[in-house]
Amino acid sequence: MRKIFRKLVELEEALDLLKSLAHHVKLDVIEVPLEQALNMVLAEDVVCMVDLPPFDRATMDGYAVRYEDIEGASEESPRPLKIIGSIEAGEWPRREVEKGTAMEISTGAPLPYGADTVVPVELSHRDEAKNLVYITKALRRGAYIQYSGSDLARGELLLPKGILLGPREIASLALAGVRKVKVYRRPVVAVITIGSELKEPGERLELGQIYDGNTYGIISSLKEWGAEPLFMGLIPDDELILEDLLREAISRADVVLTSGGTSAGAGDVTYRVVERLGKLYIHGINVKPGKPTLIGEIGGKTIIGLPGYPMSCLVMLHLLVRPFIDWIRGVKSPPSEVSVEAKLATRLHLDGRRSFIPVMLSIDKGLYLAYPLRTESAAFSSLLHADGFIDIPAGTILVKEGSMVKVKLIAPLRVHDLVFIGSHDIVVMEITRRLRDLAVLSVREIFMGSMTGLHAISCRACDVAGVHMLDPNTMEYNTPILKRLKVKNVLVIRGFIREQGLLVRKGNPKGIRGVEDLLRGDVRFVNRNKGSGTRALLDYFLNKLAEREGLSFQEVVRRIRGYEHEVRTHSAIALMIIRGMADTGLAIKPIADIYGLDFIPLAEEMYDFLVLKDRLDKPSVRAFLDMLRDKEFQREIISRYRGIKFLPETGEVVYEA
Amino acid sequence: MRKIFRKLVELEEALDLLKSLAHHVKLDVIEVPLEQALNMVLAEDVVCMVDLPPFDRATMDGYAVRYEDIEGASEESPRPLKIIGSIEAGEWPRREVEKGTAMEISTGAPLPYGADTVVPVELSHRDEAKNLVYITKALRRGAYIQYSGSDLARGELLLPKGILLGPREIASLALAGVRKVKVYRRPVVAVITIGSELKEPGERLELGQIYDGNTYGIISSLKEWGAEPLFMGLIPDDELILEDLLREAISRADVVLTSGGTSAGAGDVTYRVVERLGKLYIHGINVKPGKPTLIGEIGGKTIIGLPGYPMSCLVMLHLLVRPFIDWIRGVKSPPSEVSVEAKLATRLHLDGRRSFIPVMLSIDKGLYLAYPLRTESAAFSSLLHADGFIDIPAGTILVKEGSMVKVKLIAPLRVHDLVFIGSHDIVVMEITRRLRDLAVLSVREIFMGSMTGLHAISCRACDVAGVHMLDPNTMEYNTPILKRLKVKNVLVIRGFIREQGLLVRKGNPKGIRGVEDLLRGDVRFVNRNKGSGTRALLDYFLNKLAEREGLSFQEVVRRIRGYEHEVRTHSAIALMIIRGMADTGLAIKPIADIYGLDFIPLAEEMYDFLVLKDRLDKPSVRAFLDMLRDKEFQREIISRYRGIKFLPETGEVVYEA
Repeated sequence: MRKIFRKLVELEEALDLLKSLAHHVKLDVIEVPLEQALNMVLAEDVVCMVDLPPFDRATMDGYAVRYEDIEGASEESPRPLKIIGSIEAGEWPRREVEKGTAMEISTGAPLPYGADTVVPVELSHRDEAKNLVYITKALRRGAYIQYSGSDLARGELLLPKGILLGPREIASLALAGVRKVKVYRRPVVAVITIGSELKEPGERLELGQIYDGNTYGIISSLKEWGAEPLFMGLIPDDELILEDLLREAISRADVVLTSGGTSAGAGDVTYRVVERLGKLYIHGINVKPGKPTLIGEIGGKTIIGLPGYPMSCLVMLHLLVRPFIDWIRGVKSPPSEVSVEAKLATRLHLDGRRSFIPVMLSIDKGLYLAYPLRTESAAFSSLLHADGFIDIPAGTILVKEGSMVKVKLIAPLRVHDLVFIGSHDIVVMEITRRLRDLAVLSVREIFMGSMTGLHAISCRACDVAGVHMLDPNTMEYNTPILKRLKVKNVLVIRGFIREQGLLVRKGNPKGIRGVEDLLRGDVRFVNRNKGSGTRALLDYFLNKLAEREGLSFQEVVRRIRGYEHEVRTHSAIALMIIRGMADTGLAIKPIADIYGLDFIPLAEEMYDFLVLKDRLDKPSVRAFLDMLRDKEFQREIISRYRGIKFLPETGEVVYEA
Repeated sequence: MRKIFRKLVELEEALDLLKSLAHHVKLDVIEVPLEQALNMVLAEDVVCMVDLPPFDRATMDGYAVRYEDIEGASEESPRPLKIIGSIEAGEWPRREVEKGTAMEISTGAPLPYGADTVVPVELSHRDEAKNLVYITKALRRGAYIQYSGSDLARGELLLPKGILLGPREIASLALAGVRKVKVYRRPVVAVITIGSELKEPGERLELGQIYDGNTYGIISSLKEWGAEPLFMGLIPDDELILEDLLREAISRADVVLTSGGTSAGAGDVTYRVVERLGKLYIHGINVKPGKPTLIGEIGGKTIIGLPGYPMSCLVMLHLLVRPFIDWIRGVKSPPSEVSVEAKLATRLHLDGRRSFIPVMLSIDKGLYLAYPLRTESAAFSSLLHADGFIDIPAGTILVKEGSMVKVKLIAPLRVHDLVFIGSHDIVVMEITRRLRDLAVLSVREIFMGSMTGLHAISCRACDVAGVHMLDPNTMEYNTPILKRLKVKNVLVIRGFIREQGLLVRKGNPKGIRGVEDLLRGDVRFVNRNKGSGTRALLDYFLNKLAEREGLSFQEVVRRIRGYEHEVRTHSAIALMIIRGMADTGLAIKPIADIYGLDFIPLAEEMYDFLVLKDRLDKPSVRAFLDMLRDKEFQREIISRYRGIKFLPETGEVVYEA
């Protein structure tokens, strides 16, 4: 019933195909003045029509002299020369420099006939009364002269066809007297975004919808790469609508890009339409992410169908579309991909397919460190934090930590003063905001949960991790888990206490007061996943409840409607309640505030910070901890947010792992 | 009489000053839609207002099931489930998945209540008749589900103030539903170009004038770096004109850049005007090139005065203006400088000042090789071929060849298929043009003379060198010099013969027929520099003439008017004649054609190619030599250009060094 990719091609085959399809695009040649030529591609060889420099010129301020007159000159035996005038840049000499004379000369001024050497002013004394200059050093003949045509000569190739014009090239063209250049017009690339679930940003999301990010990522990438994007619209997975839009696109653009609508799912429409209207060359590339990519041709125009997942879409944009645009534009030697060598922060397990793993870069001990981000292509946050990706060849199932890898950059490389990874928290956000605004530090904060924070700090990929990990055996926070996992060289810095409790709808319509109400039968509960600290806390309360009621834990659990319905985040608990799919669930207090829910406090949890022992003195880490300890800061936080408590030992090292 | 720089400051002091001056610029905050936000700087923290994803969603096409129903499933014991419908992306589930049932689900579709796992379609068989699906594998609970808020949660910081918005950031903003962002408007940077000798490109050069390249280099760099250039004009070294223009510039722009007018020469005007109208903070920076740079302030607006030499101007643009623009724009973590590690191709002698040496990059044995270009700041061609520069600390007087150096890029890195360095020649240009157009190779050709070519090939910085070096002892070309200099691992490939002779004005008004006419007394000669092959050839003829006439060589030379007037290039000879400053000089035939002069043949010279032994099989080198040997090509050249002869051994190895 559904098409499963059966014939995947290798990435190189796809690139070869695109290289040949690029020849079908013929871009007009237009003439533009230099000031409009930035990032355009030269459409003709430009030959130098003048000599550079056009005359012999002085390269220093000083005196134009005859070499024979200064031979043997020194401080002790200076050579006097009669000053016969002066020449400035832009003037033309009207006198000759004869034996025994010198002409004052400015940098850039033409050398007068007869002179063959320029003596810088620093190597002379002047006697104004006698109108003499004393030369105090013998230079070589020809010193401080730039000879006409020595730099570039008339008839030399200045720039070849196919060069991308940057500031360096534009300045060179101007120096050679070129005012207008013939360049190729930018290729027009139509962009069609497909997905029934997609909504334009800024509009209200209906249930089941998500925002469209690809259109904006594609359009801005195309602009950066010198193409002219033509956005055709955001359409549902509908073959007829797509067919109409594709027909229009091929009539208006040189190339068509689509995103979405390319998976083998029920909603896969692009390949059927391309097959019907033209030729489908490639449907599926043997890479991860990016497998559901298609390449076809309609009416002589190339169609590239990009995957719908944002990270997959971005990777394929870089792997396929970027070189394709260069080929179309006729760029003869496109700028090399920018990549950096980095140490892999953590081992990578792979499924043997050629893979592009998004990584975040930081600096550790003077080397770049590449920390792999979640590889599920559906994840948005890896898009936000990925600095580049590692190309892992097919057949690889393991890359060891510490391996040197090449990271292809997808954004300009930035080195941050402080990298925070850990559990989402409002106090952290308040600290980092102050570090940015007051201490003018650049801070990267990634909220991916306590376990990711612990993992990142143990492989040195962040400076500070924020964690609240409850050990279900001891019912203690943070330190026991570090001990159990045998983490080394990490300090636990005491953070603060956050309240945990039951979220309920505003006004608490079901009258819930505690965990005992979960057994009532009319309360729909939504649970957190096993392994989360919140789940451990709930089970601890249910155990105590079971004891009190004289029931087994299993019996208690069986009575709770929705105990088996697990979600992964505090926010998901809140959303289930807002949408009326559950009545209550366990979460932290600030979530109640953010989502406008009521809160029934049950317990307190300890949110601590982990810092690498050898980075405790890093200025940005010190600034972070200083702010955490600052009493003024603490007072402000307490007055602003409910459910947060600082402790006397907040900011102090409470454990050394 | 002239100001000599007495108090030079270090580069770091200049940067510190600019950092503090940057705070004086206050840029308005404007709101723009995402599609206009590329390369703008965010003026506020953007906090995520939705959860990403906003609901639990399937990440594969397949079936939404309850985990308990598929526990233990395998190919041998598949679990049948009743299909209760299907859900596509963009829809919202209207039914629950109850025990024993499954709902068909598309990638991106919301998970129906009751289901806790998604089984990909590949792990199922379907029985349409019975409306059953058989699940053939037990996955983990929660497989192929992306939980709501698991990626980014409401209230999390999406992007901090001060971030530069690239495609990655713009896509992320869109995904989070953001349609408009507050950004800083671009800073307006006034550009004033000073120099009495400067002419706008495209206009006719008068004697003593050169074209203005800086304006175009500065304006396009500013655009690339996110500023809005405002060109105020090209003016002579005139204090009153500059004063007027500066007053206007500070009223219209946030910052003012000047170029030229900053040296300590007679024409130095900028510092005096800045001192008069405002404050002159820095006049002279202790770096090379770039010393004559000034920093001042007029009416609260920062003025940066850049040097007039194009290479100096470009280096200071990168060192000072680029970070300054980032600071003004409020970029919190500016992209790191892009630099590459490279092996220095040849030793560098320095004068102990902090220096920035422009280099050309190529690849040798898998490493980048940095070849220093002429360091005179007046050279234009180093601007054209410089890929970046090396920062040499003060106090260094020698950097050994083979040292690893860090090259800061000033243009996107390009790797060329073929690098040619050597003497300017029309046959070379015809070959490289064909390699570009027909073989689609990227070729870099640098005409800097035979000796530079020989030097470059001996330090492996080019693939092919083109040389015509006459040995005055043997009167033989090329091979003797290689032997004498003990060059190793280089092959001499026979090239072709070019005619040498006397250039004279069209129609030969002085009736010159040979070297003997140089003794006539009414002929003004212009000579080439000692050490050039052409000079050696002339002296050879004059020796023979002296013999014939029974004179000493000195006697002959004394009789030639202008024998002591030396220029460095073939072109300079032609220009002296065109401008009426000389009647004749020795040069190659094609120069006569290019400048429209008449030509009196005297001798033939051998133009050969040098190739590294281990690169003879490099495809681009082979293509070059194949073209040289091609008979069709040779016929075309001979019919098109006069004074060129190919030989039977053209393209063959004639010597191995």
